[in-house]
Amino acid sequence: MVDIATRVWNHKWKIDPIVRSLIDTDFYKLLMCQSVFRNNSDTQVTFSLINRSDHVPLARLIDEGELREQLDHIRSLSLRRGESTWMRGNTFYGKRQMFRPDFMDWFEKLRLPPYHLERVGDQYELTFEGSWPEVMLWEIPALAVLMELRGRAVLNDLGRFELQVLYARAMTQLWEKIERLRAIDGLRIADFGTRRRHSFLWQDWCVQAMYEGLGDNFTGTSNCLIAKNRDLEAIGTNAHELPMVYAALADDDAALAQAPYDVLADWHEEHDGNLRIILPDTYGTEGFLKHAPDWLAGWTGIRIDSGDPAAGAETAIAWWKSRGEDPKDKLIIFSDGLDVQKIEELYAQFAGRVRVSFGWGTLLTNDFRGLTQDDRLAPFSLVCKAVAADGRPTVKLSDNPNKAMGPEDQIARYKRVFDVGAQERFEVIV
Amino acid sequence: MVDIATRVWNHKWKIDPIVRSLIDTDFYKLLMCQSVFRNNSDTQVTFSLINRSDHVPLARLIDEGELREQLDHIRSLSLRRGESTWMRGNTFYGKRQMFRPDFMDWFEKLRLPPYHLERVGDQYELTFEGSWPEVMLWEIPALAVLMELRGRAVLNDLGRFELQVLYARAMTQLWEKIERLRAIDGLRIADFGTRRRHSFLWQDWCVQAMYEGLGDNFTGTSNCLIAKNRDLEAIGTNAHELPMVYAALADDDAALAQAPYDVLADWHEEHDGNLRIILPDTYGTEGFLKHAPDWLAGWTGIRIDSGDPAAGAETAIAWWKSRGEDPKDKLIIFSDGLDVQKIEELYAQFAGRVRVSFGWGTLLTNDFRGLTQDDRLAPFSLVCKAVAADGRPTVKLSDNPNKAMGPEDQIARYKRVFDVGAQERFEVIV
Repeated sequence: MVDIATRVWNHKWKIDPIVRSLIDTDFYKLLMCQSVFRNNSDTQVTFSLINRSDHVPLARLIDEGELREQLDHIRSLSLRRGESTWMRGNTFYGKRQMFRPDFMDWFEKLRLPPYHLERVGDQYELTFEGSWPEVMLWEIPALAVLMELRGRAVLNDLGRFELQVLYARAMTQLWEKIERLRAIDGLRIADFGTRRRHSFLWQDWCVQAMYEGLGDNFTGTSNCLIAKNRDLEAIGTNAHELPMVYAALADDDAALAQAPYDVLADWHEEHDGNLRIILPDTYGTEGFLKHAPDWLAGWTGIRIDSGDPAAGAETAIAWWKSRGEDPKDKLIIFSDGLDVQKIEELYAQFAGRVRVSFGWGTLLTNDFRGLTQDDRLAPFSLVCKAVAADGRPTVKLSDNPNKAMGPEDQIARYKRVFDVGAQERFEVIV
Repeated sequence: MVDIATRVWNHKWKIDPIVRSLIDTDFYKLLMCQSVFRNNSDTQVTFSLINRSDHVPLARLIDEGELREQLDHIRSLSLRRGESTWMRGNTFYGKRQMFRPDFMDWFEKLRLPPYHLERVGDQYELTFEGSWPEVMLWEIPALAVLMELRGRAVLNDLGRFELQVLYARAMTQLWEKIERLRAIDGLRIADFGTRRRHSFLWQDWCVQAMYEGLGDNFTGTSNCLIAKNRDLEAIGTNAHELPMVYAALADDDAALAQAPYDVLADWHEEHDGNLRIILPDTYGTEGFLKHAPDWLAGWTGIRIDSGDPAAGAETAIAWWKSRGEDPKDKLIIFSDGLDVQKIEELYAQFAGRVRVSFGWGTLLTNDFRGLTQDDRLAPFSLVCKAVAADGRPTVKLSDNPNKAMGPEDQIARYKRVFDVGAQERFEVIV
């Protein structure tokens, strides 16, 4: 029987909103937001969209009006009661009341600030300016909107059965990956694929398939809405934006050199256990670890997010040993450009020597490679980054020069201050 | 919104019926039934299930109670008003009132006769006895029930996502076949896959996918219910049961030799155009054509249903030439054990020399090969045949000794009467 009311209701929607909830975002954004809300709520930042795959002409694919409608819809969202209850009452990383009442009071009243959108050639310039804790929450939904609108543009050309077969193929492809991962005894892997997902519904399917296929070896999802809806763990710690903004705010070279450690000192006060994860590569992993204070060696683990992951892990293991720590007690989280083969290789190389975990992103939630003509649905490298803080430009170096960003003179300065030597280049796929 | 009424309604079903309509059967069954109803309505026949794949232990896989419930449900069916209207009012093969009022009056009152079911070892003995026009209608639904119950038994062991991925893979597999068929310019192909389909819903999907992918090159489906629901052509002509029963009824060898031609003489009176299709292989194609009366050479085409299809087609072409007919005006329908590669080969070999058409059966509607552990969903060779008529055993030889059936002494007699020499054996897959 047709449910007439539902059908009529569905026809009333003017758009099909891509992001429908303020917690359809990464867990670490909310954690960092709370930290920024406490320590740096007056800092003014600019976030900007950067399409590292300039062969994808976003402005030709995506209608500007549709993009504005989706972004406007996000600005209309506010935290729902059940979402707030979940954030206030749920246990995260084994801890109750992870989100403090003052932060929740603020978050419950929040609406996202305005955006600035302009077409420049075949790309969009999309920027967000304002106070850091507000602006930072744009990053994930803005990326998700652009990725999904680009996908919809491609899907618009497909017939009904072509669509069904497309998803059949994508499901088959993912399930084959899961069957391979199933063979890895003791695997720990989480979904980190919100920002560059194919679509919300697809990410939701992927997460459920991972849980169905891997059981408890699937440790959770970075997506808070899916974690809430599917009763899974919300996963994530912190990201480059913290050291990038702290560094930009530094008044001189000495303060700059100290900035990445200041970030973690603030984090140290707020979090313990599995939330004490070092992200060492913002200005080069090697220099960061060499100059790190001893208390950082006591942290639980390190996340490897750029460069050669095996080399990064070896560096971390050597560093722990040099500080008198047993690497077997330590956790390494790999999260850069993973796919099944890389996961298998890294697990084989490091399991037993350290505790190993994986944050699997784009190639979990958006692997449509090979499924359409001209590969028009293949994922691409889109980011949304803090580019300025209190009027000063930010800089990121990472362990891969292809991921570096910022004004050239500032990049040179940062390289000098952080003692970054020659770096190997790695192709950035996603 | 959950439609509560639908949900409650769904829970009221005691079983999930596999066959839900008397026209969920092959079109040619109804055509033949009408012919039998007119010419042989008093003939008493026995139809019997024969599992040519004895490695599939049907009685171990399928619960006897469930099988009885499904068969009992079929006995509860009668022709619905809309179904009757469609049969009476629709155009079949370009002709109005294909089904005559007297036949329709009888069919509207029909319920299928009793069945006899017994477990013997790991197989079921399932037989149907009674008047020919009634009993013959059991063949297709009985096969469909057994095939689908076997499938359900296998599917019962799969989890929710395994099921979704299974169908995703099957859809992908079929769509890849359709994409290959799309490349064949001028292809004519129909669905002949009712009897050994994976399930009704799956056949319905396959038919829609074929139409979506091939457009008018997809000429229709043998399944009347799907043809009606999807507004497609119902396709089919006649089958071996006619010559088999006519032959069994023959009183001596001379009458036996004449029986296959008597069948087609009756058919000739009733049908013209594309319904005048010779099925020559019941007792050997070569002998049949050699002794055929000249008026048969005037028929539209020949269906090749056993033996080496290319050799059969060459035999047909040579025969037409020998009778002064131009093969370019003639139609050859291939319908035995087809899959895409075979279709491509046969089309390449014969298009242009004759009109070529394909009736694609089991590997269209039940190709789940390679999709489950131990290939437990692979199709197998199950048939339901007339084994006796008015107390005498029937015989089928075909162009493949592996498909021959009947008592040995009768097979020997038929081979002598029909002048069948040495025959090549071909593996029967489906």
